[in-house]
Amino acid sequence: MTQPCEQISPATAPGSREHYREVRARTEAIAAPLTVEDHVVQSMREASPTKWHLAHTSWFFETFLLARDPRYREFHPRFRWLFNSYYNAVGDQPERIRRGLSRPPLSLVQDYRRHVDGAMLALLESAPPDLRDVVVLGLHHEQQHQELILTDIKHVFGTDPLRPGYRPDLPAPRSHPVALELRPFPGGIHEIGHAGAGFAYDNESPRHEQLLRPYALANRLVTCGEYLEFMADGGYARPELWLSDGWATVKERGWHAPLYWEKDETGWRQLTLRGLEAVDPHLPACHVSFYEADAYARWRGLRLPSEAEWERAALTGSEGASGEGTVYESGPLQPQSAVEASGLRQMVGDVWEWTQSPYVAYPGYHPVAGALGEYNGKFMCNQMVLRGGSCVTPGSHLRLTYRNFFPPDARWQFSGIRLAHDLTD
Amino acid sequence: MTQPCEQISPATAPGSREHYREVRARTEAIAAPLTVEDHVVQSMREASPTKWHLAHTSWFFETFLLARDPRYREFHPRFRWLFNSYYNAVGDQPERIRRGLSRPPLSLVQDYRRHVDGAMLALLESAPPDLRDVVVLGLHHEQQHQELILTDIKHVFGTDPLRPGYRPDLPAPRSHPVALELRPFPGGIHEIGHAGAGFAYDNESPRHEQLLRPYALANRLVTCGEYLEFMADGGYARPELWLSDGWATVKERGWHAPLYWEKDETGWRQLTLRGLEAVDPHLPACHVSFYEADAYARWRGLRLPSEAEWERAALTGSEGASGEGTVYESGPLQPQSAVEASGLRQMVGDVWEWTQSPYVAYPGYHPVAGALGEYNGKFMCNQMVLRGGSCVTPGSHLRLTYRNFFPPDARWQFSGIRLAHDLTD
Amino acid sequence: MTQPCEQISPATAPGSREHYREVRARTEAIAAPLTVEDHVVQSMREASPTKWHLAHTSWFFETFLLARDPRYREFHPRFRWLFNSYYNAVGDQPERIRRGLSRPPLSLVQDYRRHVDGAMLALLESAPPDLRDVVVLGLHHEQQHQELILTDIKHVFGTDPLRPGYRPDLPAPRSHPVALELRPFPGGIHEIGHAGAGFAYDNESPRHEQLLRPYALANRLVTCGEYLEFMADGGYARPELWLSDGWATVKERGWHAPLYWEKDETGWRQLTLRGLEAVDPHLPACHVSFYEADAYARWRGLRLPSEAEWERAALTGSEGASGEGTVYESGPLQPQSAVEASGLRQMVGDVWEWTQSPYVAYPGYHPVAGALGEYNGKFMCNQMVLRGGSCVTPGSHLRLTYRNFFPPDARWQFSGIRLAHDLTD
Amino acid sequence: MTQPCEQISPATAPGSREHYREVRARTEAIAAPLTVEDHVVQSMREASPTKWHLAHTSWFFETFLLARDPRYREFHPRFRWLFNSYYNAVGDQPERIRRGLSRPPLSLVQDYRRHVDGAMLALLESAPPDLRDVVVLGLHHEQQHQELILTDIKHVFGTDPLRPGYRPDLPAPRSHPVALELRPFPGGIHEIGHAGAGFAYDNESPRHEQLLRPYALANRLVTCGEYLEFMADGGYARPELWLSDGWATVKERGWHAPLYWEKDETGWRQLTLRGLEAVDPHLPACHVSFYEADAYARWRGLRLPSEAEWERAALTGSEGASGEGTVYESGPLQPQSAVEASGLRQMVGDVWEWTQSPYVAYPGYHPVAGALGEYNGKFMCNQMVLRGGSCVTPGSHLRLTYRNFFPPDARWQFSGIRLAHDLTD
Repeated sequence: MTQPCEQISPATAPGSREHYREVRARTEAIAAPLTVEDHVVQSMREASPTKWHLAHTSWFFETFLLARDPRYREFHPRFRWLFNSYYNAVGDQPERIRRGLSRPPLSLVQDYRRHVDGAMLALLESAPPDLRDVVVLGLHHEQQHQELILTDIKHVFGTDPLRPGYRPDLPAPRSHPVALELRPFPGGIHEIGHAGAGFAYDNESPRHEQLLRPYALANRLVTCGEYLEFMADGGYARPELWLSDGWATVKERGWHAPLYWEKDETGWRQLTLRGLEAVDPHLPACHVSFYEADAYARWRGLRLPSEAEWERAALTGSEGASGEGTVYESGPLQPQSAVEASGLRQMVGDVWEWTQSPYVAYPGYHPVAGALGEYNGKFMCNQMVLRGGSCVTPGSHLRLTYRNFFPPDARWQFSGIRLAHDLTD
Repeated sequence: MTQPCEQISPATAPGSREHYREVRARTEAIAAPLTVEDHVVQSMREASPTKWHLAHTSWFFETFLLARDPRYREFHPRFRWLFNSYYNAVGDQPERIRRGLSRPPLSLVQDYRRHVDGAMLALLESAPPDLRDVVVLGLHHEQQHQELILTDIKHVFGTDPLRPGYRPDLPAPRSHPVALELRPFPGGIHEIGHAGAGFAYDNESPRHEQLLRPYALANRLVTCGEYLEFMADGGYARPELWLSDGWATVKERGWHAPLYWEKDETGWRQLTLRGLEAVDPHLPACHVSFYEADAYARWRGLRLPSEAEWERAALTGSEGASGEGTVYESGPLQPQSAVEASGLRQMVGDVWEWTQSPYVAYPGYHPVAGALGEYNGKFMCNQMVLRGGSCVTPGSHLRLTYRNFFPPDARWQFSGIRLAHDLTD
Repeated sequence: MTQPCEQISPATAPGSREHYREVRARTEAIAAPLTVEDHVVQSMREASPTKWHLAHTSWFFETFLLARDPRYREFHPRFRWLFNSYYNAVGDQPERIRRGLSRPPLSLVQDYRRHVDGAMLALLESAPPDLRDVVVLGLHHEQQHQELILTDIKHVFGTDPLRPGYRPDLPAPRSHPVALELRPFPGGIHEIGHAGAGFAYDNESPRHEQLLRPYALANRLVTCGEYLEFMADGGYARPELWLSDGWATVKERGWHAPLYWEKDETGWRQLTLRGLEAVDPHLPACHVSFYEADAYARWRGLRLPSEAEWERAALTGSEGASGEGTVYESGPLQPQSAVEASGLRQMVGDVWEWTQSPYVAYPGYHPVAGALGEYNGKFMCNQMVLRGGSCVTPGSHLRLTYRNFFPPDARWQFSGIRLAHDLTD
Repeated sequence: MTQPCEQISPATAPGSREHYREVRARTEAIAAPLTVEDHVVQSMREASPTKWHLAHTSWFFETFLLARDPRYREFHPRFRWLFNSYYNAVGDQPERIRRGLSRPPLSLVQDYRRHVDGAMLALLESAPPDLRDVVVLGLHHEQQHQELILTDIKHVFGTDPLRPGYRPDLPAPRSHPVALELRPFPGGIHEIGHAGAGFAYDNESPRHEQLLRPYALANRLVTCGEYLEFMADGGYARPELWLSDGWATVKERGWHAPLYWEKDETGWRQLTLRGLEAVDPHLPACHVSFYEADAYARWRGLRLPSEAEWERAALTGSEGASGEGTVYESGPLQPQSAVEASGLRQMVGDVWEWTQSPYVAYPGYHPVAGALGEYNGKFMCNQMVLRGGSCVTPGSHLRLTYRNFFPPDARWQFSGIRLAHDLTD
């Protein structure tokens, strides 16, 4: 089987033809283990079929780069409309729930990719710098969708009664106990946000000062074993532990465990990308909503970190974070136990960590002009920030300033829990 | 391209191995023009993916015949549950809306068919007569699903923004004007329903007497051109023409034309199995609900026939009905103009004709014992009877006593309108 | 407390001022035990507040009689729209679910009634015969709403956590066991439907012949005790007893007993118009849907009667039916045990009896012209016929040809079960 | 007519019998202009009937004070359950949508109030200080419900086709143009939040430092005239002005103007508590959602203030704020034009001003222990903070640190818009 992911070589120039080729090839490598049928199914409104992801990422380059070129010959007259996700400035778009279409067939979408690739590689021979920025954005966009292909196909498999695995041949995750400790961090005025030359989304800017109070952060993620204790203690049946909207959600949807967990005569099992497996108490808890993360923290007498707390701690307290967590390229595509160490562990590349911060604009934020301004800015309401990246996030896509965001009831992302609490001065 | 359908040779013994082979092969021929992706999509709760039809028809033989044989080795431990449609006596079943699954892949479903075929052909070497009846039932069941594959894939294509055709190479329908005339039929006590040795569903029995009053029946179906006049006369905007539930449906769903009709700058077009085509005024109107058929008839100052009126007229007044209408085997897979003649035309094999009869049990009806009693009996509420069979119904599947039934708002079947009215004695 | 109902004296001429006064006064007597607050609440879409009933019945006279008179001064410019129920030919109307309004206050609605009464009594001094027919229709319409006031306020009280009674002072029902027997009736051609000079709704016409097969009808209604046996035998948990739509309804709404039944530590209790009382096994089962009636009959190995069977049996086999059942005027406003007798009992005035007949037009039926044609005709779809009238139906409102109709899932009417079965010739 | 509201005399000791009597009497004065019927109706899930407010505010004293006293005789055994709003620690509660009950009648609820008042006044003769705090909380709770009675009855009248006024005798609002100016405020570390001895809700604490950047705040609220310009410029049809969730809401609900605005041949009219009146361009725009406030600000090239910006500006820049805005006691119960002045105007007591701040805990926040901890804390998700208080908020209930909160789509509160923007250092 094709190895789905290889690291983008650090030597590759951002936005170069090599960069473009590497990212695009990886998307196809991720889709390679799937059957044609797997590419088609949309299991819920929020998730998209793989075939759609393959087309939409090409649409992005076509719409924001190629369409500006009068010599470009469009592949299909309806694709500009069909594969628009939510860019109103580009035009109307199909209803989100209507992405599970049989046509165009996968082979035609693959032709579409090749068509776009040909035109893009020609363009990249002599792309001016301002286009180069859009190319880099498009490649990061594509990396986001690489992660979404995996989260969304997992949801397809999670709603399939046969509970298939994506790749049963994946390696087993590292598993052993690590003691939970809370590491102190100082208060004061600190800068957060992106600055400098590297790529970042517009929502990570401007870099700005935030006032923090002394706090502590857990050295590792909450484990499945710890989460099972919460469940055993009636966590899903005690309204005092939950936000009001969270409690309503628990009752309405009948939640009683993380997504993808199910109980049989052998105990709790969870669907991973390898298939259905016993829940391992040493592994990080995953596929919990913000509501569950918040309730768990309250049950422990602690809280979730703010995104500023998380970012400052990640910058200063993380030992070997980038080396440890980026399991994506060769890893088991599920979070694994931390490597024992004195600092913070599992900050990057294990699970997206829910913060207590609603997703709002940084002070002085302005979206970029035009349709690309819709990329991040218009979602700044009713969502919570998640930090750190997950085991299915491409390693070269992550940054400590990265702000991911999902509604508080979302569970199908690889999302977990890191605990925090207040320190008195 | 494979010719999808050949006539079952009249010489074939019902329930024989030859019969089994012919019907099963035709199912696969019908699916042959589809892409793998086309097999997967479920476009609404009421319609099923082709892949599901292929599996469920095999499940029928496995469940009601093979499973009784202790030597039979089941193909997959979960299929007994997964491909059950609605037989509660067999066991629980998946939610109907959850049939659009990616797994098992099409190839495995095809293997499942071959596995069942092998066991069935062995069984048929020495099947006792009581089993033979279930075999024949299973083959008629499969023929029903042959029609459903076509109606359901048409719905998939009708919700696909690209509006693909199933087989663009299909021949064009015969099209020419035929004058509408009303043919008189006498009242009195008449028998309807099935009797005799041939196959029929349990709901066609017992044959029994019905008291009719003199009536007249239209010599042909209502055409698109006639239906366009209803539309032009404000048919969809005049509540006095509609049943109360029909009017509520019109408003709620925004109906303003038959299903699959859409208007562009060139005028009205409709999706057929050949693709999107101009509406031809001479062809029968199709894909209307009972509500629309009833409103149309009221607008004309006429009414729909009862099923007893229809059956008596078909028996006595139809000229060459069986020869004319069974366009399925070599036809255009859409209704076509009647052959001019003095009798009733288009009674069989053009469109399912809505009657004014709610679907209820015939007097003295008893469903067969066991799970197969769920086939027809439990649906005798909230549905209307349709008669005659459509251009996508296998010819050998039709009978003049056949009672099809759908809810009054259903439009995705090939359903149309024949007019009737009362004659005074 | 005001006695809510007195019998309309048989001597009163239909459509006379005396008749008008008596019917109108009775409506107000029925509302008299209610608080002002009780008049306001709409507990579900299908039920209406008492205040609305009081206004709508006046609207009927205003719209179909007074408005034709150029001298008539309308009471309020918005009432013509506000209190229209469903007459599209009169004009648009508010959404049905929006009847629970605080304004106009009850006192203004009472003024409206007096205003209409004054104008009607003046009109009746010299009403021409064709108006007289509409007056009689309006009074029967008002009597229907007298029953609906009671069924709808019972639903208000049934959804009120305090479970109040409408009139705790009502007399207790007669209660004693009566043996169940099946009485035979002959087949053949029989006439049913209304004919003659007396009042009837248009849907009872034309009188026409129906062909019946020999049948038997139970001498009394199914009792609560018998229904409890069905429940104890798993009646609500056995899909094989139910129509498919019925079973879906049972699961979706969690039905496990008739409406208004609840179980506490003392056993089953039911809300009556006297308040919450122990379920009495000798009283007729009431507040069941068609689905439940049908499932019960199947469980007994019997069936429900057709409406033609019911009507013929009522005409020929009922002993003292009209004397016995019309408990409304002085009765307990709940069904009571039959008086022991050799004939059919409880045919009229106990509970509405579900038949197996879908509500369709009689052969040759034509609705009356104009808006009044919407009274009955447009509902001839998706409903089942009920016969006999209930303990809350005004006695002078009932006829053996009366066709009531409700959807098969309706339970808030006083609806019950009479068993039937086929006799062989 | 009873004057609905008199000022609580500043001399009254908080939590004293005089204080209790004054607040309780005012609630009843607010309800006095209503008919009995008006007390009953629940027009949507989020709003409650006046009768429920009258009962629930008494329930609060009974549950959190009187029930602790073994000598207290409860008024009704079911009220503890029936009038619980959302306090899970007290016990289960009825569904929120089920508050529009006819029983208990208004008179019994008034008896309940008197019963609770008698017991409370006895208790207050010798209440220990810790109880006194709960008394004060209960009175502020009651004042919140005084405002809700007015907002909720306005919604009842707004959904009533007759569009009645609450008090047509109310005085007309002051109306004249005032120039819009943006006043500068400095950045830096500032304290916000409650401190000191006076009453405040737990969510206003702890007082803490926030880091602000220099900013400007509009001297007055956005007016109806200015909002009409936004509408005329296609404000409701331009997705680029809206947050994604806001745009989805606009389309789904068909918003095209503020709540309670409707257009007829004379132009735009809006329902006020006096009745339906022409929209006055000089009055503050009111009954807009956060989505509309945010879109309006974006259309102006400005933004909404954060709650910290608002609080600091209110403390330092408001001229005569408390004197000007508290129109509630003798005012028109609708927002009116600002008094011309050089400082900030209309900061308190005009409309609740949407901020850009999601409603989250202040750093170090801990809800109070027990059921009263559910008062504010569990709602800290999916809501936005509003500041300033409205023309229907009791004047003695307001504080500059007060944090009101509603979901971003809520429009039935008296909510409006104040503009802000960034200043560079």
